[in-house]
Amino acid sequence: MLKECWENVQRKSPLVHNITNYVTVNDVANVLLACGGSPIMSDEPEDVEDITSICGGLNINIGTLNKSSIEAMFRAGKRANELGHPVLLDPVGTGASKLRTETADRLVSEVRFACIRGNISEIKTIANGSGTTKGVDADVADAVTEETLPAAVAFARDLAARLDTVIAITGAIDIVADGSKAYVIRNGRPEMGRITGTGCQLSGLCTAYLAANPEQPLEAVATAVTLMGAAGEIGWSHMHAVDGNSTYRDRIIDAIYNMDGEILEAWAKVDVWSNDQP
Amino acid sequence: MLKECWENVQRKSPLVHNITNYVTVNDVANVLLACGGSPIMSDEPEDVEDITSICGGLNINIGTLNKSSIEAMFRAGKRANELGHPVLLDPVGTGASKLRTETADRLVSEVRFACIRGNISEIKTIANGSGTTKGVDADVADAVTEETLPAAVAFARDLAARLDTVIAITGAIDIVADGSKAYVIRNGRPEMGRITGTGCQLSGLCTAYLAANPEQPLEAVATAVTLMGAAGEIGWSHMHAVDGNSTYRDRIIDAIYNMDGEILEAWAKVDVWSNDQP
Amino acid sequence: MLKECWENVQRKSPLVHNITNYVTVNDVANVLLACGGSPIMSDEPEDVEDITSICGGLNINIGTLNKSSIEAMFRAGKRANELGHPVLLDPVGTGASKLRTETADRLVSEVRFACIRGNISEIKTIANGSGTTKGVDADVADAVTEETLPAAVAFARDLAARLDTVIAITGAIDIVADGSKAYVIRNGRPEMGRITGTGCQLSGLCTAYLAANPEQPLEAVATAVTLMGAAGEIGWSHMHAVDGNSTYRDRIIDAIYNMDGEILEAWAKVDVWSNDQP
Repeated sequence: MLKECWENVQRKSPLVHNITNYVTVNDVANVLLACGGSPIMSDEPEDVEDITSICGGLNINIGTLNKSSIEAMFRAGKRANELGHPVLLDPVGTGASKLRTETADRLVSEVRFACIRGNISEIKTIANGSGTTKGVDADVADAVTEETLPAAVAFARDLAARLDTVIAITGAIDIVADGSKAYVIRNGRPEMGRITGTGCQLSGLCTAYLAANPEQPLEAVATAVTLMGAAGEIGWSHMHAVDGNSTYRDRIIDAIYNMDGEILEAWAKVDVWSNDQP
Repeated sequence: MLKECWENVQRKSPLVHNITNYVTVNDVANVLLACGGSPIMSDEPEDVEDITSICGGLNINIGTLNKSSIEAMFRAGKRANELGHPVLLDPVGTGASKLRTETADRLVSEVRFACIRGNISEIKTIANGSGTTKGVDADVADAVTEETLPAAVAFARDLAARLDTVIAITGAIDIVADGSKAYVIRNGRPEMGRITGTGCQLSGLCTAYLAANPEQPLEAVATAVTLMGAAGEIGWSHMHAVDGNSTYRDRIIDAIYNMDGEILEAWAKVDVWSNDQP
Repeated sequence: MLKECWENVQRKSPLVHNITNYVTVNDVANVLLACGGSPIMSDEPEDVEDITSICGGLNINIGTLNKSSIEAMFRAGKRANELGHPVLLDPVGTGASKLRTETADRLVSEVRFACIRGNISEIKTIANGSGTTKGVDADVADAVTEETLPAAVAFARDLAARLDTVIAITGAIDIVADGSKAYVIRNGRPEMGRITGTGCQLSGLCTAYLAANPEQPLEAVATAVTLMGAAGEIGWSHMHAVDGNSTYRDRIIDAIYNMDGEILEAWAKVDVWSNDQP
C-alpha cells in the first residue's frame, strides 16, 4: 500500500487546488511540492471553478474563512464533484464559532467529500453538530489514548459509513477509517503540535494522495498520514541542540522531499483494524 | 519580573486571537507556539466575536488592513473589552496612508488597549494624529538614541498616561512605559530589522504575556520585549557564515522555543526608569 | 552592468509596494529585505494610492487575485504611472482561468508596465490572449530549450517592442528583452521549481532593481534575474544531505542577503543577444 501510493504521486504529480487559510498556506504549497505534487491557490468565487477544473483534487480548509471564501468553497466543491475530483474537508476550528460550525455542516451537506480530516474535537463536532474545540487544537478531554482507541475507531468507522467518506482523526494516535476498515497509525512526534499548520499540511498531502490513487481512497489517506508522521520522526532525528519549532517545520518538509517508498515502509507503524479490533 | 512572567506563560498557555496581516502571520503563529502560547487567526467580522470569546487576549495588527478586517477589528476589540481580555494594537504603517492613520486613531478612541506597540514613528503618529513613517519602518530622523532617550521616555510615559495604556516603542533601544514607570531595554540586534515581521511577532508575544500576567501589564510587556531581544542575540550567536536573514528568522523563533526563565534573566539588559531617569 | 545595478539597490534601498498573493508574500518581503530594499504590502483599494505614492516601485502579482485586490491593482497601477514609478506585472496563472486571463489583459491595456515577468506559458498568454498554462507552472510543451531559444528570444523582443516594456521569461533558460536587445541568462537550478514562489520573489527583486536603476530598465531586470539564479546556485552549494526544498528556500534568500557585486559577476552566465543572435 505505502510504496504503491507513494509511487503514484511521484508518477502523476497531481495538481491540487487549495482553498486554505492564509496562516499556513506557504507551508501547504511547499509540502505539496515536496511530496511530488503541485499546488495552486485560489479563493475568489469567480476564479475557483476554472481553477479546480484543471486540477486533480480540491483541498478545502476553513481556518481563516470569510464570506467570499465560503462562497468559493461551495462553488469549487460542487464543480469538483461534477468532475469526479476528490474533495477533502479540513474543518479547522469547527465548534469554536457559530460561523465555522455552520459552514462545516453546510459543506458536509452540500458537497461530497472523499475525506474529512481533523483533530478529534473537530471530527466530533462534525458528527454531533457541536463540540468543545479549544480554538484550533483538540480539547484534552477528547484525546485519543490507547484506552479510548477502540471506541474512537468505532466512532470513526460509523461516521465514515454515515457520511460515505474517509474519516481521518489525527493526534498522538491517528485513525483513518472508511465504513468497513480502519488504519491505526502511531507515527509522528508530540513536538509537531508546536508547529503551526502540520494539520493543514497533512490535508494538502491527503488531497494529493487521493488525486493520484483514485481506486483506493482509504489507502491513499492512510499513506499520507503515515508519510507526515514518518517525516515528523525523520525530521526530528535531524534536529540539533539549538533548533526549535521553526527549524523543525523545515526539517519535516525536507524529510518529505527526501522520502522514497522504501524509507516510508521502513518507518511506518501502521495497523489494520477490522470489526474495531487490531 | 522576567522569570515570573515567563513562567506564567508556560503554565497558562494563553490562547491568543490575532487579526493580523497576511505577510508575517505564519511567523506570528509559530512564535506564539514557541513561547508556550497558542494562536488562532480570524478576521471575518461574523466570526471574530465568537473566536475572541474563547481566547485570553487579542492582537490587532493593521499591516494589511482591508474594509472587512477593519470591521472585524472593532467588533473583536469591543467584545474583548467587554470580557476584560487584554487587547494590543500594532499600528503598522500608521502615518503612511490616510486609511491607516484614521483606522488607528478610531481604534484608539473606541477600543481600550492594554498596550500599543510600534516603532517610534508609528507611536508619534498615534500621539500626534500624523507622522512621517517611512512605509512600515521608522523614519531615521525619529530614531531613539542615547541622547534622545530621556525625551523619548518622557514622551512614552506621557502618552501612556494620556491613553491609560502601556506604550512600547521598539527599535535600537526599546522603551516600555505606563503612566508612572518605564523600562528601558537594550537587547536585540540591528540585523533583526532585515527580517520581515519581527515587530509583528513581538506584538503576538506581548499579547500572550499580557494574557498570562493580568495583574502586571507593564512587566508583562517589558518581559516580552526583553524575550524578543534576547532571542535575537541568542539566535544570532547560532548563525554560520553562509546564513542570512531567512535563516536568522528561524534562529530567533527557535531561541524563543528553547528559552527558560534563567536564560532570559542572564541575557536581559533592562533598566527601570522613574521620573524619566535611570 | 551587474555590479552597478547591484550597488544602486544597496545605495538607494528602494521601498517597493507589493500587491501580491498570500501564498508567497512572506518570502517576497524577506527577499526584498535581503537584496537591500524594503517591502510594503497593501491591497485595499482605499489604501493603495497613498502607499504606492511613498514607494519607488510597484509589484503587481495576480497569484491569488480577488475582486477587491483587482480594483487595488488598477488604482495603484494608475497612480504609480502618474508618479513615474516603475510597475511590474507578474501574471501568475494567466491562461489557467478566465478571470486571470482577462485581468492580466486589462492590466496590460490600462497600466503602463516597466516589466512583465512570467514563465513562458504566461507570457505566451499575454501575447496571444489565451494559453495552455498548467496552473501556475509552465506547460512542458512551451519550454525554452537551446533549440527553441532563437525563436523564443525573437518572440520576447517582438512582444517587448509591441508593449513598449521589458519582457522577462524565466525558466531553465531566462530571457530578458526589450525591443532592441536581449539578455540570455543560464544561471539557476531545476530544484528551484520545487520551491513555491521563486518566481514571485524574483518579481519583487526585479521591481526593486527597476526602482533603483531608472535609467536602464533592461539591465536592471537582467541583473535581478541573474541575482536570483546565482543565489539559487550558491544556495544549493550550501545544502546538506538531509536538506530539501524548505531549507533550500532559506538558503537562496540567505545567498541574496550575503551577495555582493563581485560575487554576482563571478557567478553570472549572461549573454547579450542582438538581432536574435548571441
